Amino acid sequence: MEKETLNRQVILINRPAGIPQKEDFKIIESTMPMLAAGQIRVRNIYLSVEPAMRGWVSAVPNYSDPVALNSVMRAFAVGVVDESMHPKFKVGMRVAGLFGWQHYSVVDASDIEQVLDSDDMPISTALGVLGINGVTAHIGLLEVGQPKPGETVVVSTAAGAVGSCVGQIAKIKGCRTVGIAGGAAKVQMCMDMFGYDAAVDYKSEDFSNSLALACKDGIDIYFDNVAGRISDEVMKHLNIGARVVICGTASVASWNPHPVGPRTDRTLLVKRARMQGFLIFDHKDYYPTARRDLREWIRSGAIRYKEDILEGIEAAPDSIAGLYRGENIGKRLIKVLKD
Amino acid sequence: MEKETLNRQVILINRPAGIPQKEDFKIIESTMPMLAAGQIRVRNIYLSVEPAMRGWVSAVPNYSDPVALNSVMRAFAVGVVDESMHPKFKVGMRVAGLFGWQHYSVVDASDIEQVLDSDDMPISTALGVLGINGVTAHIGLLEVGQPKPGETVVVSTAAGAVGSCVGQIAKIKGCRTVGIAGGAAKVQMCMDMFGYDAAVDYKSEDFSNSLALACKDGIDIYFDNVAGRISDEVMKHLNIGARVVICGTASVASWNPHPVGPRTDRTLLVKRARMQGFLIFDHKDYYPTARRDLREWIRSGAIRYKEDILEGIEAAPDSIAGLYRGENIGKRLIKVLKD
Repeated sequence: MEKETLNRQVILINRPAGIPQKEDFKIIESTMPMLAAGQIRVRNIYLSVEPAMRGWVSAVPNYSDPVALNSVMRAFAVGVVDESMHPKFKVGMRVAGLFGWQHYSVVDASDIEQVLDSDDMPISTALGVLGINGVTAHIGLLEVGQPKPGETVVVSTAAGAVGSCVGQIAKIKGCRTVGIAGGAAKVQMCMDMFGYDAAVDYKSEDFSNSLALACKDGIDIYFDNVAGRISDEVMKHLNIGARVVICGTASVASWNPHPVGPRTDRTLLVKRARMQGFLIFDHKDYYPTARRDLREWIRSGAIRYKEDILEGIEAAPDSIAGLYRGENIGKRLIKVLKD
Repeated sequence: MEKETLNRQVILINRPAGIPQKEDFKIIESTMPMLAAGQIRVRNIYLSVEPAMRGWVSAVPNYSDPVALNSVMRAFAVGVVDESMHPKFKVGMRVAGLFGWQHYSVVDASDIEQVLDSDDMPISTALGVLGINGVTAHIGLLEVGQPKPGETVVVSTAAGAVGSCVGQIAKIKGCRTVGIAGGAAKVQMCMDMFGYDAAVDYKSEDFSNSLALACKDGIDIYFDNVAGRISDEVMKHLNIGARVVICGTASVASWNPHPVGPRTDRTLLVKRARMQGFLIFDHKDYYPTARRDLREWIRSGAIRYKEDILEGIEAAPDSIAGLYRGENIGKRLIKVLKD
C-alpha cells in the first residue's frame, strides 16, 4: 500500500497583537516524519477552530505558553491512526487530541485524549459538543455556576459551541434561560434550536431594554464568553447571590493596553455575588463525567448541536478571524482528509 | 431615684451624595419615650462609627433601606438596661445592638443582639473586635477567602478595625500577611502592633513598586475594604486560584455616576480566580462561632486591637467624614454616657 509522503501544515508566522488574521499564518508542505518507538501517526479528518486560539498565539501572559513562531498552530483535531509504533494504538483507531493544524500528526500516546472506538456519535462531535466545548459548558455551568431549578441563567454567545450547550444544560436543570447573540439569525436559532426561553440581539440598538425585559426577575447566573459592553449590561441585573462564570472575553479586541469599564466591586458587594474565572484544562479528571452526561443528553434529544464545517486546510488561516467576525453558525471545524 | 427625662439624638437631615458630612446631621433634644409592654430602655455608653454608614444613608440601591430623613442615625451601640418591661432583660444588664446614635434607646427584645453579662472583655469590644468588625473579618477571611497555610494574604485598610483583625487571623492560620495602609504611622502600626510580615503605604509615590516587592510570590487572597486604584494595583499580582474578598469600597468617593477602572474579567479568567462580595448581616448564625474564636485569640494575645474613642455625642456628626479622612487609629467609638 502506497503511503502519502508529504504533509501539509499551517504554521504561525507573525504574532498578532489582537485577533489572528489570515496573514499571520502560512501553509507549508513538509516531509512526513519518521515514527520513533512508542509514537503514533494520525491522519487528521477534522481540525478544530476555537475563539481561545487568540490567546494561544498571544505573547500577553496567559494560561499557556504561546505557540512558537514558525511552528504548527496548536489545535484540537480528530483523525485515524495511520501508522503506529505503540502497542495500544492500532492502525484504523479513531482518536482525538491536540494534534495541530496539519494533515498528519506524529504524536506520543500521552497526546491522545480520546479514543473514539465504540461510539455511536459522529467523530466531529469529539471536537465540539463532546469535546472541549461541551465539557467547558458542563463544568462551567454546573461546577462553577451551581444552578438551582427556577433560577434565571443568561448566556453570552448563546448560539455558539459552548453557549448553546450551556443554555440547554441549564434548561435540563430546570432553569429559565436567556440567550444573548449577534443578529436576527442567531437569535432565532437560540429560540428554535436551543430552546432558550428568551433571546436578545446585542447588535440591536434596543439591546439594553430588551435584556431588561427578558430578565424581569433578575439574573442568578451569567455564563460569560464575551466581557466588555455586553457584560456591563448584564451586571446591572444581578440578583442577590448571583454567580458570574467567566469563560471567555471574546468581545474585547485587545488587553494591551488594559481596557477600562464600569467597576464591578460594589455590584458584587451589594449583591453578595461571585465572579469566577475557570479554565477547562484544570479539570481533566472531570471530562469523563461530563462526556457521559452529554452523550446521554444528545441521545435523548435534550441537547442539540450545530456544526459549521469549512472544507480543506486552505480555510484554516482565515478561520479564527471569521469566528470573531461572527460568520460561523455553530461549532467551527475544518474537514481536511477523508474519513 | 430621679430619672433623666430628656434624650439627645443625632438625626439625619440631608441625604449626602457621597461621604456624609457634619452638616448632614443635627443633634436634637427630645423627651424620653414611654415603654410599652415588652420594651427595654438602654442607656448607651458607646456609639459605634462605621465606614459602612456611608451606604446606610445613601439612596443608591444597597443592601439595606436607607436611614429615613429626620430620623435617628442607625448605629451599633452598647449600653446598660435602664428600665425594662421585659422579663428577660433586667435593669443593669449590659447589652449591644443597633440602638442608634442617641443617649437613650427604647428597643424591643429582638433588637438586642448581645448580652454582655459574664464577659471578661471591656464592653467597648462588643462594637469592634467582638462586634461587627471582628465577626466580619472572621467570616470574610475564613469562610469566603478560605486561606491555606503558606499563602500570601493582602489586606487593605490594614490597620483599621476590620483589616487589623483580618491580618491577625490570617497570621494565626499560617499565612504570610501584607498590609496596605495610609501613611507612615499606620504602616508602622501594622508591623509593630498587628504583626504583618510587610506593610505598604498607599499614599507613597512608590506604592506600586513597594507592593510588588512585598508580594514577590504573588497574592493568594486579597481582603479588600477599599476598591479603586489600590485594588487595581493588587489585581496585577494575583496568583492562580486567588480569592478576592470584597468587604468594602471605601476609596471610591461616589458610585453615581458609576466609576470606571481596569476590567478584571481577563485577570480572573487567566488566574482562575474568584472575586466575591459578602455582607455580614447574611451570616448571623455564624456570629457565636466567630466570637468564641475571637475571644480565645484575644485572651491568648494572638489578636490585639486598637480603639479610637471620641468624647460626647457632639462628636458624632463629623465622625464618619473623619474616618474617610483617615483620622482614626483603630476602631472609632463615641463615649456618650457613663458606665
